[in-house]
Amino acid sequence: MISLVNLILELANYIGIIAFAISGSMKGIKKGMDLLGVLVLGFSTALGGGITADILLGIKPPTNLVYLPYPLTALLASFLTFLFYKMFTNVGKPLLYADAIGLGAFTASGASLAYSIDPSPLLVIMIGTITAVGGGVIRDMLSNEVPVILTREFYATAVIIGSGIYFLLRYEGESNYYDIIISFLITTVLRIIAMKLKWELPKVTNT
Amino acid sequence: MISLVNLILELANYIGIIAFAISGSMKGIKKGMDLLGVLVLGFSTALGGGITADILLGIKPPTNLVYLPYPLTALLASFLTFLFYKMFTNVGKPLLYADAIGLGAFTASGASLAYSIDPSPLLVIMIGTITAVGGGVIRDMLSNEVPVILTREFYATAVIIGSGIYFLLRYEGESNYYDIIISFLITTVLRIIAMKLKWELPKVTNT
Amino acid sequence: MISLVNLILELANYIGIIAFAISGSMKGIKKGMDLLGVLVLGFSTALGGGITADILLGIKPPTNLVYLPYPLTALLASFLTFLFYKMFTNVGKPLLYADAIGLGAFTASGASLAYSIDPSPLLVIMIGTITAVGGGVIRDMLSNEVPVILTREFYATAVIIGSGIYFLLRYEGESNYYDIIISFLITTVLRIIAMKLKWELPKVTNT
Repeated sequence: MISLVNLILELANYIGIIAFAISGSMKGIKKGMDLLGVLVLGFSTALGGGITADILLGIKPPTNLVYLPYPLTALLASFLTFLFYKMFTNVGKPLLYADAIGLGAFTASGASLAYSIDPSPLLVIMIGTITAVGGGVIRDMLSNEVPVILTREFYATAVIIGSGIYFLLRYEGESNYYDIIISFLITTVLRIIAMKLKWELPKVTNT
Repeated sequence: MISLVNLILELANYIGIIAFAISGSMKGIKKGMDLLGVLVLGFSTALGGGITADILLGIKPPTNLVYLPYPLTALLASFLTFLFYKMFTNVGKPLLYADAIGLGAFTASGASLAYSIDPSPLLVIMIGTITAVGGGVIRDMLSNEVPVILTREFYATAVIIGSGIYFLLRYEGESNYYDIIISFLITTVLRIIAMKLKWELPKVTNT
Repeated sequence: MISLVNLILELANYIGIIAFAISGSMKGIKKGMDLLGVLVLGFSTALGGGITADILLGIKPPTNLVYLPYPLTALLASFLTFLFYKMFTNVGKPLLYADAIGLGAFTASGASLAYSIDPSPLLVIMIGTITAVGGGVIRDMLSNEVPVILTREFYATAVIIGSGIYFLLRYEGESNYYDIIISFLITTVLRIIAMKLKWELPKVTNT
């Protein structure tokens, strides 16, 4: 059972890396970047959140820079996006689901890593969130734009809820594997429902 | 005496966190961000400088992510700014004084922390400065603007002077508590005088 | 022989710090920044890449914040650029060569440092690259621009090749000193050839 959970999470992780790398490299192409810029944006979007989380937690060097399968997957996905850009413009909808799966997997793995280092509720939520959405923030900042997660959609909020639920379950003494899988599923499902129903957070109007 | 100094500094710290959080969340509101973006900007402006300083000094996880009173204060101040935005637009002037108090407190605590880890003059000045103004730089970068401290006003310069004076006093063997309070007062008073007299640093003209 | 290699590298390092500091401070002047902003941009461009590399490798506090000759050189070069800005606008071409020399020196020293901490190929290439081009990325982000290395010219690519060659030579058991000098020369020469021949990386057209 544990190995099945591991397998599902690992698979979800790779789906996330690929979806995030495609999103980053497409942004780079739209911004008129060259091949290097496209690879950097794909890599940063897929792995920059995890690298930032590792820096905050004091894990050095960051796992995403020394464990090769993750970065190679991100770079390969970015390179293929560069080569076959026009084909990728037609996969918007499936890509959003892949992105939601990756979002859940990144949230659960980030929250779990933070808990193992310091079981502080704020740290677990922050690191879960940064792991999942930090890459997108880096992508937007390198593209000279206000990070999209700060302005609209119910995206980071799903991650915050998923990380918080992870903390509560783990704190209550659940097995770590169930905590992870539940946090992963809740984040992903919340994100998909939010897309379907076009949920938005409130804004201050008339400013 | 020592406990009174501690009390004053701790109070000044909270004043700074609240003033910085309000400044960050108001920027987020002006940029059209949603509730999450406003909370992120308030949090980052208030605590991002200290987090960056902790990363540079190797303090992990950063204090601002595990010691709860600071982040909760920042998030609460940001949330209240979001709720009562219109009322906050009328507190510009008192806010500038609160900001100057926080600037001094952040400078003194950052410089003192750096000195305790490595008594290098450059490090003490850099960490004092990053602790005090780093949050504002993050706020402006997330808002897709050139950091305001780089372009005008005598703001970071007050912090650099305050950090340098801290180093000199501590190096000369003063009690750490007096060093801190003097550095705090000089930074805050310099900033207030600079506001009153509209001090500016020189620029290259005719470019 | 080893001391001669050391001398050459150290000289190349200072050439790089000065060239990078001038490039950063000139950007600050063009953006209308005041003296402080110009110093911050010069400092960040010259030393920000090395500081980022140290954070990723867990070297704390970062060498560039405690070993004084490097930051003092960067700040002095930036200050002189501020004072004599008009004279510096006429040194564009020699500056490009100095920049190429610094690029090679930063690449070799970053790659060598990373190898000594963890001999992973990806880490060596990443850290070599970040050491050499990270400062320029910080300069552009503080200037609210898309980092120029992401959009055009054969610049970071020379660094990636130079870092990769360092890894291969060191992995094959060469003396560390020859590895460093060869990696330095290849990076610098590649960059100069790329300037002369106006090499560009491919882009996706018709987007």
